This record gives sequence, C-alpha cells and structure tokens, in this order.
Amino acid sequence: MTETSTRRRTRSGGGAARRAERSAVSFETAKYIERNIPNFEVLTEEALEIIETNAETILEEIGVNFVNNPAALQRWRDAGADVKGERVHIPRGLARELCKTAPASFTQHARNPDRNVEIGGKNLVLAPVYGPPFVHDVKGGRRYATMEDFRNFVKLGYMSKWLHHSGGTVCEPTDVAVNKRHLDMLHAHMTLSDKPFMGSVTEPSRAQDSVDMCSILFGKDFVQDNTVLTSLININSPMTFDDVMMGALEVYAQNNQACIISPFIVGGAMAPVSVAGTLTQVMAEVLAGIAYSQLIRKGAPVIMGAFVTSIDMNSGAPTFGTPEASHITYGAGQLARRLNLPFRSSGSFCGSKLPDAQAAYETANSLNMGLLSGVNFMLHACGWLEGGLVASFEKFVMDADQLGALHKFAAGVAIDENAQAMDAIREVGPGGHYLGCAHTQANFKSAFWRSDLFDYKPFETWAEEGSRDTMALASARVEKLLSEYQPPAMDPTVNEALAVYVAEKKAAMPDSLG
Amino acid sequence: MTETSTRRRTRSGGGAARRAERSAVSFETAKYIERNIPNFEVLTEEALEIIETNAETILEEIGVNFVNNPAALQRWRDAGADVKGERVHIPRGLARELCKTAPASFTQHARNPDRNVEIGGKNLVLAPVYGPPFVHDVKGGRRYATMEDFRNFVKLGYMSKWLHHSGGTVCEPTDVAVNKRHLDMLHAHMTLSDKPFMGSVTEPSRAQDSVDMCSILFGKDFVQDNTVLTSLININSPMTFDDVMMGALEVYAQNNQACIISPFIVGGAMAPVSVAGTLTQVMAEVLAGIAYSQLIRKGAPVIMGAFVTSIDMNSGAPTFGTPEASHITYGAGQLARRLNLPFRSSGSFCGSKLPDAQAAYETANSLNMGLLSGVNFMLHACGWLEGGLVASFEKFVMDADQLGALHKFAAGVAIDENAQAMDAIREVGPGGHYLGCAHTQANFKSAFWRSDLFDYKPFETWAEEGSRDTMALASARVEKLLSEYQPPAMDPTVNEALAVYVAEKKAAMPDSLG
Repeated sequence: MTETSTRRRTRSGGGAARRAERSAVSFETAKYIERNIPNFEVLTEEALEIIETNAETILEEIGVNFVNNPAALQRWRDAGADVKGERVHIPRGLARELCKTAPASFTQHARNPDRNVEIGGKNLVLAPVYGPPFVHDVKGGRRYATMEDFRNFVKLGYMSKWLHHSGGTVCEPTDVAVNKRHLDMLHAHMTLSDKPFMGSVTEPSRAQDSVDMCSILFGKDFVQDNTVLTSLININSPMTFDDVMMGALEVYAQNNQACIISPFIVGGAMAPVSVAGTLTQVMAEVLAGIAYSQLIRKGAPVIMGAFVTSIDMNSGAPTFGTPEASHITYGAGQLARRLNLPFRSSGSFCGSKLPDAQAAYETANSLNMGLLSGVNFMLHACGWLEGGLVASFEKFVMDADQLGALHKFAAGVAIDENAQAMDAIREVGPGGHYLGCAHTQANFKSAFWRSDLFDYKPFETWAEEGSRDTMALASARVEKLLSEYQPPAMDPTVNEALAVYVAEKKAAMPDSLG
Repeated sequence: MTETSTRRRTRSGGGAARRAERSAVSFETAKYIERNIPNFEVLTEEALEIIETNAETILEEIGVNFVNNPAALQRWRDAGADVKGERVHIPRGLARELCKTAPASFTQHARNPDRNVEIGGKNLVLAPVYGPPFVHDVKGGRRYATMEDFRNFVKLGYMSKWLHHSGGTVCEPTDVAVNKRHLDMLHAHMTLSDKPFMGSVTEPSRAQDSVDMCSILFGKDFVQDNTVLTSLININSPMTFDDVMMGALEVYAQNNQACIISPFIVGGAMAPVSVAGTLTQVMAEVLAGIAYSQLIRKGAPVIMGAFVTSIDMNSGAPTFGTPEASHITYGAGQLARRLNLPFRSSGSFCGSKLPDAQAAYETANSLNMGLLSGVNFMLHACGWLEGGLVASFEKFVMDADQLGALHKFAAGVAIDENAQAMDAIREVGPGGHYLGCAHTQANFKSAFWRSDLFDYKPFETWAEEGSRDTMALASARVEKLLSEYQPPAMDPTVNEALAVYVAEKKAAMPDSLG
C-alpha cells in the first residue's frame, strides 16, 4: 500500500468505511499505457524550426489578446512583454523560456491510488468524451443529455478496463441549471468512480468549487501538495485568451492543479487552411497560454493541447479522421516533445450521426494517429459522435473496446527466447500445425488481443442469433454493464460531506442559464 | 504519348479503334502513391538480426518441403542445397544470396500506359479484394458469387479513382466451371478495365493461358520484354511449397512475369503464436520462395508477401485489424526493405459479417498500418468482408473512398511559403476568422481531403433524408456507379481475338471441378 492510500484510509477511519471497501465489487482497470514503440514523425527538423520561428514571430509582431483581464496584462508587463490595449506582444524567446518551469511529467492522483496516472513521457492516459449537449442510443435516439445520462456514462467509464480516467463533462446535463451542474457532475465522478477526473472551467468560481470538493474528497493538505484535477482550458483561436477560461486557469494553477491548454481549431475557420500554418498558430497559442500558467505559479502542471479538425469546404462542417488532421496531430506531437511537455490530442473523433462504418473509420484513423503521435493525454478517447455534439452510449463501449488494442500495440514486440519460438518451429516442422504444440499451449492465453464486443462467430451462428450489427451488439453490452454496475468503495462520511457541500452550494444561489 | 502506347496504337491500326477511343468516357484514376512520409518501424536492429539469423537456421537445419516437384528438387541440388526426400535444406546465406538478382522495383504495364504501376521503392499500389467465394450486398444479402458479380466488381474497380490495379479473383465466379473460370475472369479484366491485373495460379496450364491471353492483348513481343501480370503465389505455411503454386510460379518467372510470393498464415495455426516467431517463419519462407523464383529465371520480378492474421483462441476464427497483425506487418516491412525487395501486405481486412462499425474499425486499423509499414502492393485494399469469405459491394466503395485519404496522408506536409501562411495569420489576427481571407480563398479547393461517400450534412438534413447509415449511402453509390459504367476504349480486333481464344479454350475441354 502506498503512503497516499494509507493517509487516506487513516483519515477515513471508521469501521463502516472498511466494511464498505471489503464488500465492494472491483472492476479491473488497466494501467495507463507505457509506450514501448517509437513515435511516428511527419515533420523534418527544418520544418519544425520554421514553424517554431514563425510562432515566435506571431507572438512578437502580431501578439495575442488577453481579453477583459487587466491582472493578466499586468503579469505580462511584469514579465517583459509589450502590452498595447489588450494585445500582448511577447518578445522572441520569452514565452518558450517561461514554459521551461512547467514539469515534463506529473502524477494526477485518484482517490483510489491504484488509479493514479502519470501524464507525460512515453505514457498515454485515456479519458472519455467531453462536452456533448446531446446523447444517443440505438433505442432512444438522439436527445438532450440529462444528469441521469451523465451518471450512466461515468458508470460505464468506471467499468471500462481500458479507460484510465473518468473525464469531465462526459455530456452536458441540460436538466440541471448551468450554474449548478458542475457540482452534480463532480459529485458523480467522485462517488460513482474511483478514477481521476477533471474540474469545471465555465467560471473561475466553479473552478474553485472543484478544488474545494477535492479538498473534501482527498483532504485539504493533500490537494495543496498534489495534483488531483486535470482540467480543459480552451484557447479562443485565433490567439485570444478570454477571461472565463483564463480565470479558471488562474484558480487551478494557483492551487497546483493541472490544465490542458489547448487551441480549439476548425481548420480554415479558426486557423489557416494549411497544415504548416495551423501548426504555427497552435504553437504560438500554446506557448502564450503555457507561459501564462507559469506566470501564475512556476511549476504548475500543464499539458500542451491541440484540438484541430479539418473542414468540409462544401458545407463548412468540421470533418474527422482525415489526413490533414493526422498531419497536424503528428506535427504537434513533435513540437510538444521539443518543448518537453505532456501532449494532449486525438480522440474517438467522427462526424457521423450514428455509430456506423463512417464513425468507425474516422475514429480508428484518429485513435491510431493518437497512439503513434505520442499523445500523453487523450480526451474524447471513447463515446464521441456527430462532431462532438453527441455522446453515444453504443459508441462509448465500441471505442472503449478498441482502446484495448492500443494497449497491446503499444507494448511493442517481445524478442526473448520464448517469443523467438524456435522450439515450436522445430517441433511442428514443414506441413505441421501449431495449435497443439507446447509453445502454443503455454502462450495462447496472452498471445492475441481479443475484442470483448466484436462478432467472431461463424456466419451461420451469427445469422441464427439475429444477424446483429456492431450497434446492436454494443447496445446489449451497454445494458449489461449498467445492470451490473456497483459503486467503488467509499468512506460514507466523505460521501456525506460531499453531498452536504453540493446541497448547500445549490441552495445558496438561484438557477441561472450562464 | 509514351513509346509503349504508340506501339500498341500502331498495332491496333484501324479507324474503328480510333473512333472507339474518341467516344469512350474516361474515369479518373489517381497515380499510385509515392510516399513522402517515413515508414513506421517497431523492431530494433537487434531484433531484426535475431529474426534473420533464426530464419537461416530454419532453412539450414529444419528445411522446407517442395512437394511433388522433382524438377524443383533438382534445381535446389544444383544450386547447392542439401535435399533429403522432398525436404530442402538450404545452407546459411544461400537463399539470401539468390534473392539478390530479384529487382528492387519493377513496372507492371497496363494496356492503357497511363495506368502502368511501378511496384517497389516508396510506392504503394492498391488492388481490390481477392478470392472470396461469396458476395454480399445490402439488398441481396450473402450469396455465392457469379460471373456477373465478378464483372460488376471489375467495373467498380475501373471506376474507383483511388484504385490503381484491377486485381485478380475479385470474387470466385462459382457459376463457371473451375477449369474455365480463369478465362472469363481474365477476359473481364482485359476488356472491362484498362488497369493492370493478375493472372491465374490454380494450375500451371492456367498460368500459361494467362500469359497467352496477355500476348493477344499486349502483343507477344511486348509480353516477353515487359511485365504485364502480377500473380499471387501462396506458400502453404509452415514451410511447404506445393506443386500447383510452384508450377504457376515457374510459368510466370520463365515468362518474366511478376509473382507475389506470400505465406498465408493464421497465427497460432500455421505459425507460432508469437510475433517474433511468426516473422521468423515468414522470413524463412519468403527467402526460400523468392530464391526459387530466381533459380527459374534470374531477375524475374517478385514481391515479398506477408499475409498474416491473428486468431481468436476461443473459437479458432481468424481475427483482423488486431495489434499483433500490425506488429507483424510493420516488422515484415522492415525485413523486406533489408532484402531490398517490394513488399506486399495489409488490406481492408475485417472479420465482420456486415460492412458495419466492426468492419470499419478493423479495416481502418489495417489500412493505416499498411500505409505506414511501407507496403508496396496492397492486395485486398477494398471490398474484403467476413475474413475474406465475402466480397462486399458496399464495403468495396466504402474502402475505396478511404484509400483517397491514404493518398493525401502519404503526400506529407508542405512547408513552402504558401503553406506557412504567415500572411494569412497577419491578415486575420487575434479574434478574426479565416474563411474569407485571401489565403483560404486561394487554397481551399485542395486543402482538405473530402470523402465522396460519408455524410457531412447537419443532423436535421440527414434525418429528413431518411437517417441513412454508411451501408445505405454505399448501397446507393454502388447502384449509381454501375449505372454510369462505360467500358474503356479498346481495339475491337483485339477484343474479338480474346473472345475467340476464350471460346476455343472452353470448347476444347469438359467442365471440371478442380
């Protein structure tokens, strides 16, 4: 048992807590991916240098806007930037220098220390879809998301072996007032799962609520000394840092909590139509954003984010799983490694309205590029549908199943004597059959990754069972998982303290739409 | 106009031919992919050396069987191998030495010289599914394939922009006698398409028929001087070279026609359950097979093939798009490059019974690994369903559409001044919008790859149009393409000579089942 868990167990104290822990059903979760494979790189050294040089030119000559945030402007002035109105011109090299105090890697703690994740280096941490206002399932169709949907997604995430992180806004619970829903969402993550999770960013005060609830869950001292939240700070591309997102960033950085600092770009709309141009703007934006986080608190953990889609120039719709998005993601990974910072990108991206073949082609393209581009934190790793407007129950379990394949691929190729299998080849010989040989018997259980969802049956069996497509199989799996859900063990006193906090906070303010 | 096409035009002569060419509708075909991206490599130098050393040990100590083929055994004896019964023990280094006379790259000529393909180097040539006894479409379901289905697949392949090759047995026309169907299949490729194609391998005499029909199509001299067929020679893994396949190989090599020499391996059954063990066996098998092709004729063009699937150890079913298959494909690519030979692997592999999400995940995984592993000739690049038992009409057009994305990705990232887009970033500035800027206007047409099949419409429009999934969209596309098909221009005298050859050959023998 680690020191962390001992401390928490000690704090929780009572016999009820221990009894609850003993009786709880445990669902297996894989360790985050530790890559034993190289990264794929599309940009030459020369291209990288051009992009980095141009990014510095943007920061110095064009500048970035910090909107409605006089304190931020003052911080930039103090750091040596040239501030004109709300436009911050950052002298060449300054932003990159400021970024150096951000850690190359950090631990995000979970309330179950076995679920702690290390974000950075060769690691890949997988988290579910974030932000959709709608949900979809095969039986109920597309509809506005509710808090009940939210809780169900958290349960599915908790039960998904290949998901390391509970995520944040897995869907927008539109039946709860905008100014209160973060409380219910955090409460769900904290109680229905024991994996790490994300904080609210829609208001600085809600970021503070997130930190305060973590102080109840983890203990106040623990939160001040450790990172227990990773939250998503979007930059308003091009080159605009609004006061709401920056306000949330300020709260998190001050409290040593992690932020993904991420441009959100539909290519051709919020950035140039070219890959190199987009990467240049992304680079300038993350340099400014990460530098700003370090102005708040040197050493505050951050992740360099790049959310970039291509666009269908016929309709203006964002498009997913496309070659241009792959180019950008691979390139952004190279730029992040040169900054020596954790990298967030990719996900189960698709534009399809259904979890059908289009969805799967686009998603598989995105997941593969995410793995090979060196992503360290993959938000949206499962459940994304219809350009992110929809969280799909079926696609959640489909994608989560595919994430298992990423684990196996990332483990690389064994080359020890057992893997060389020369004894097996000698034993079987020309014209023989390997199924019964000793090497096969000794190794078959772990030799091949196997989907928990896909159909591997003979055609006749499959037809007799109703000729179900992947959507139908996934629908059955969602139902089965939710019916088997049991919450992770939790100290009831902490659970109650969280409930009281949420109730009091909600009672103290009227419902609001913003 | 190239010399090649001039010669053929001159040969065809008459005014009817020229009129036919003028009135023909032309369908656009992309040039084969010339990669401007690196290869992804999973094996270390040390692992590669171990595998190569072990492969030589297999050849020397265990040996390979050349079955029912005394002439082959004599050739091996003459080359210095130690032959015991039908077992050929190849001294360490001999097979690799023999492989050196095989060309690193070769041109396969098409009757339309614009469709010639260069196989090897950084190139990737895409060919459709090969071998399924069944076909499937959404309306007609799964059924035995007929010659009519075969012709329809050839038409679809001809009309597919991203397919460079017409393939071979795109499905097995089960309504034609086994000993005659190769004639109809070749006739279909030769007349319904003008892309390069494959020859028959099910009997040495059918390989000879393939060469003879090419002599009619291209001219006898042309065929002796140029490669006009690439055919698929499977090795009976483990380590067995049967007389039928070797007989076909002998015919092709003698005639300077190309062969893919390819183990066909369901991992755990025909090779060890481990990746390294499978690669070792693959290496030994292709070394022996390619060396043998060079014993027939030094310099005969060959492709190193690796068809390897994983297996579901619960059911024994082969599985596709899995991490182990990717490891093997990436590793085989590295081994092929060290042999300095063209590499064949990957395809639109899946185990699904329908062109649904499972099919698309598995296929996208396979296509991506094919592109990044350095494959030079990708058979099965579209249309594969249900472990290769089924050629799917809908999946053919779905996959063929995705092949377009491979082209764009393989082109790499431009970094010239236009791509850097600094003028656009200056013009738009913080908080602006790129859609209307000069750079976007100048570049948007070619900036982003766009599917010709997928749905990019808003949800409401999509719902009004019937909420169609990808299968339904693909079904409509298949119907549209087939209704718009027009054959490529062809000299009617050649067409007639081919028809006469086929009719006479068929009349000269009774129907047979083998």
